[in-house]
Amino acid sequence: MDKERIVILIHCPDKKGIIAKVTSWCYENGMNVLHCQQCLLQDEETMMFFMRIEMETESRDFNRSDFEKEFGLFSVKEGFSCEIHFAGQKEKVAVLVSKTSHCLYEILSHYEEGDIPNAEISMVVANHDTLRNVADKFDIPFHYFPIIDKDKVSQERKIISLLKQEKIDLVILARYMQILTPDFIEEYRNRIINIHHGFLPAFQGANPYLQAYNRGVKIIGASAHYASEDLDQGPIIEQDTVRVNHEAGPALLREMGKDVEKRTLMRAVAAHLEHRIIVCRNKTVVFSKEG
Amino acid sequence: MDKERIVILIHCPDKKGIIAKVTSWCYENGMNVLHCQQCLLQDEETMMFFMRIEMETESRDFNRSDFEKEFGLFSVKEGFSCEIHFAGQKEKVAVLVSKTSHCLYEILSHYEEGDIPNAEISMVVANHDTLRNVADKFDIPFHYFPIIDKDKVSQERKIISLLKQEKIDLVILARYMQILTPDFIEEYRNRIINIHHGFLPAFQGANPYLQAYNRGVKIIGASAHYASEDLDQGPIIEQDTVRVNHEAGPALLREMGKDVEKRTLMRAVAAHLEHRIIVCRNKTVVFSKEG
Amino acid sequence: MDKERIVILIHCPDKKGIIAKVTSWCYENGMNVLHCQQCLLQDEETMMFFMRIEMETESRDFNRSDFEKEFGLFSVKEGFSCEIHFAGQKEKVAVLVSKTSHCLYEILSHYEEGDIPNAEISMVVANHDTLRNVADKFDIPFHYFPIIDKDKVSQERKIISLLKQEKIDLVILARYMQILTPDFIEEYRNRIINIHHGFLPAFQGANPYLQAYNRGVKIIGASAHYASEDLDQGPIIEQDTVRVNHEAGPALLREMGKDVEKRTLMRAVAAHLEHRIIVCRNKTVVFSKEG
Amino acid sequence: MDKERIVILIHCPDKKGIIAKVTSWCYENGMNVLHCQQCLLQDEETMMFFMRIEMETESRDFNRSDFEKEFGLFSVKEGFSCEIHFAGQKEKVAVLVSKTSHCLYEILSHYEEGDIPNAEISMVVANHDTLRNVADKFDIPFHYFPIIDKDKVSQERKIISLLKQEKIDLVILARYMQILTPDFIEEYRNRIINIHHGFLPAFQGANPYLQAYNRGVKIIGASAHYASEDLDQGPIIEQDTVRVNHEAGPALLREMGKDVEKRTLMRAVAAHLEHRIIVCRNKTVVFSKEG
Repeated sequence: MDKERIVILIHCPDKKGIIAKVTSWCYENGMNVLHCQQCLLQDEETMMFFMRIEMETESRDFNRSDFEKEFGLFSVKEGFSCEIHFAGQKEKVAVLVSKTSHCLYEILSHYEEGDIPNAEISMVVANHDTLRNVADKFDIPFHYFPIIDKDKVSQERKIISLLKQEKIDLVILARYMQILTPDFIEEYRNRIINIHHGFLPAFQGANPYLQAYNRGVKIIGASAHYASEDLDQGPIIEQDTVRVNHEAGPALLREMGKDVEKRTLMRAVAAHLEHRIIVCRNKTVVFSKEG
Repeated sequence: MDKERIVILIHCPDKKGIIAKVTSWCYENGMNVLHCQQCLLQDEETMMFFMRIEMETESRDFNRSDFEKEFGLFSVKEGFSCEIHFAGQKEKVAVLVSKTSHCLYEILSHYEEGDIPNAEISMVVANHDTLRNVADKFDIPFHYFPIIDKDKVSQERKIISLLKQEKIDLVILARYMQILTPDFIEEYRNRIINIHHGFLPAFQGANPYLQAYNRGVKIIGASAHYASEDLDQGPIIEQDTVRVNHEAGPALLREMGKDVEKRTLMRAVAAHLEHRIIVCRNKTVVFSKEG
Repeated sequence: MDKERIVILIHCPDKKGIIAKVTSWCYENGMNVLHCQQCLLQDEETMMFFMRIEMETESRDFNRSDFEKEFGLFSVKEGFSCEIHFAGQKEKVAVLVSKTSHCLYEILSHYEEGDIPNAEISMVVANHDTLRNVADKFDIPFHYFPIIDKDKVSQERKIISLLKQEKIDLVILARYMQILTPDFIEEYRNRIINIHHGFLPAFQGANPYLQAYNRGVKIIGASAHYASEDLDQGPIIEQDTVRVNHEAGPALLREMGKDVEKRTLMRAVAAHLEHRIIVCRNKTVVFSKEG
Repeated sequence: MDKERIVILIHCPDKKGIIAKVTSWCYENGMNVLHCQQCLLQDEETMMFFMRIEMETESRDFNRSDFEKEFGLFSVKEGFSCEIHFAGQKEKVAVLVSKTSHCLYEILSHYEEGDIPNAEISMVVANHDTLRNVADKFDIPFHYFPIIDKDKVSQERKIISLLKQEKIDLVILARYMQILTPDFIEEYRNRIINIHHGFLPAFQGANPYLQAYNRGVKIIGASAHYASEDLDQGPIIEQDTVRVNHEAGPALLREMGKDVEKRTLMRAVAAHLEHRIIVCRNKTVVFSKEG
């Protein structure tokens, strides 16, 4: 019999004894806690409590829906919000791209190597036909949805329809050079990860490397964030930087930035897939990886 | 009435329910848990459990020795080792130096700014008279113990005697260029922090910058560790690195390294003073800082 | 007889043969080139050439003003701008502070250690009396100029008058929490180095750590730049960053930031004092340190 | 008519006027200097001079072999060693692998994106058949040379023979888990780049991540170096590090290390292909990238 591994994400206004209650429940219900992380965050007037608990059951008669029901009742009684994930359940992923391949290669090669075991990459979706051959290399279905006559709304509607049909859980914008409409965002709230090739909040909008060059910065960066209605304003998941100097013009900055972009995006995607993120208004709690 | 803040460090072989038991005990004894971190570490054959819990009591009739006794009984019953620290109790610190001032300045200026509030720096001890004026600037007693006729044993005996008399809790080797004898180490086991100006385990022993230069490395570093009998082999607390290139000769490496050394040492000292470190054989668990 | 060491900074629109001409002139005039760095930078329509050349003369009858005259004639003939520095000539420095000491300690302890040999720190100037004791520790004259009745103009006039009287070459704003007037900036164009405790161009203006916290960034930073009329818009000299996470509130960010601030400021100051910076409109060319 | 771009790498014992002579020669021969970098390095008793000069000719009747002859005569006259590269000439590259794909993907995806324009990747060579499908994806010939009956010498002889037949200029060991024989090294002296998954000189030899874990380091790294007869002792080209903590066991360290390994290797390969490296005994001068 396989052990079942469960990750639970919890949040609520801070209250005394909450850690004790949750860990005691798990103990009394025969769970073996593998990792447990908590933190407090001031959210305007309220001190909020966040917790991630990863545990294992060895019980022969473990039943997912029973567990969900029981833990759900417990959460209502104690007054906290929770999300329950069973490690065995794969997240279905769609990767949206335009013409640049480095982020797509990063995701697909990690996927092929088995580095993101709880993802199933179901499709690559593109507004250009350029990267079809990359998807083909990895035998991932490639869907080409061009924007015709500037009608982005119809194009997006087709994409959303496909994503829903395929029951996609996570959308990765791997240098997808189109701004999503609020409808798209709303449909996949906190389930769309974008990589911005600038060190947010500086250099929002178009051509951040040229902006960085013009400002003469000595460090460039990239920011992975959940997409929100306000462009480049969504909750930041991960950022990284690299030192540059006066020798680098905009083209070299762009080249140097690629490496930062792809690893920043990949780390954010892994954190999401490993259920290590809780969003709190415009911020994220990203629990660290253990193992 | 002041709230009392308590930090407890716990470790034991991993056992089911340990987090639940500890946090429940705290809850039932009226404690408010502020921070709580745990981790597991494989130590040879055994999976070890480590925990740091920081909490506050609002109880009017809280009594430190009662608390110690009660928590002690609880720890015996549940079979874990623990260390209890009351945040209000200052740690008495001695800083040992030779001739180089950058680490000493780093410590004393942070101290003066109030960045390490639970330390009381009681003395600077030196085998050269060079840095007396630095200690004087900050009104810290300076004790000069030269090594006469190569008799390090007597010199050390005098130092140890002074440290004991002053009830020193922590010894910082802030570029003290003498190897301590095993007796000294034994007396202050896991309470002597040394800064090694090399990226351990590379470049052990003397003149690590020259070694680094000769090997043509592209990154140099520093390592803060607890002193042990085997030179440069003690449990590493903190490390940091800085990028260098072929343009830097040994003298420039040494200059660039100073900055890494002092901040690495300072972080290790802060982690110790904030009771965020548990030593497990030749490794450290260093819990992160929250607040 | 002492060798004389000379640093020359050159810039002009790029032209063929310029490196050959300059290095040949030096060779023919008996100079021994120690370091030589060049670069090209696109400045709007023009490709600009920048060069730093460090050399030594062994000639017994070397004369500074003769050299300046001859090299000046050469520069006019070849059509480039230049700045000549004799390594033996110390730069007179004033450090402006308010109440926070970490940057001041960084500068003064490096100064005392001999790390910035071509600086002479002539004074600490403050709008509060708080850090007098720090200046006293290092025997640096401390001048307290409070702003009375919000009359910053008179206060600044006194400061400028003192700076001029003492023939100050470089002004360091070591967390001086006042915005300088355009007159002050104009007087010391590209000779005032400020440390901004945010990662410019993000988080301009007041309280950058709170801004960073509110935006939920995963990396904070500091920026050292020449002060300009537009607040926080001057040419950036040096930047550095440090990784943070959700566990850090605004107070911890501020504490973590101090270390980045002081080392970023110190590196910028060293680059200026070693004549490694050329300003080009709102950018800097910062030549690397060799040795 | 196309402009011809030429990179020349020069080294010799330091002598007065060398920069002037080289740049004057280029100027007088109608070359337009685009980038020019020099440095001095103490090599035992001798101060060595290193220079990289990148230039362009617009001359209609430029002839490569004439240029080589003329510059060769000049170098003999002035007493320096030189290497001349024409930017248009592609370097033929062989990538050696075993079973792990991340470094191979890094190289091939950059290649496909056009990031290393002066390389022609001619083949992937492997001692296991595992990564054939990766080479196939990119239409690169895959050659499988198993080691039969532990006879590494015959296996290597076949590889070398193929490399010579295909006129390979650069061999990349992209996690090729075999130690090369001295004959192989000798044949491709300073033309074999290896990635070591440890922060050299620490953690030489096998399983560096387990070594790092056992030592309890707080930072792990990777080192790209030219292969030499002494294992892991060759001239280091590039290194990078990443911060880890007690939460990471050997498996997670290995996973975290992959990202550092592949980007470190890629940067070293780019530096070699762009003719930015000069080897001096067991060290490298790596000139920075400009553009």
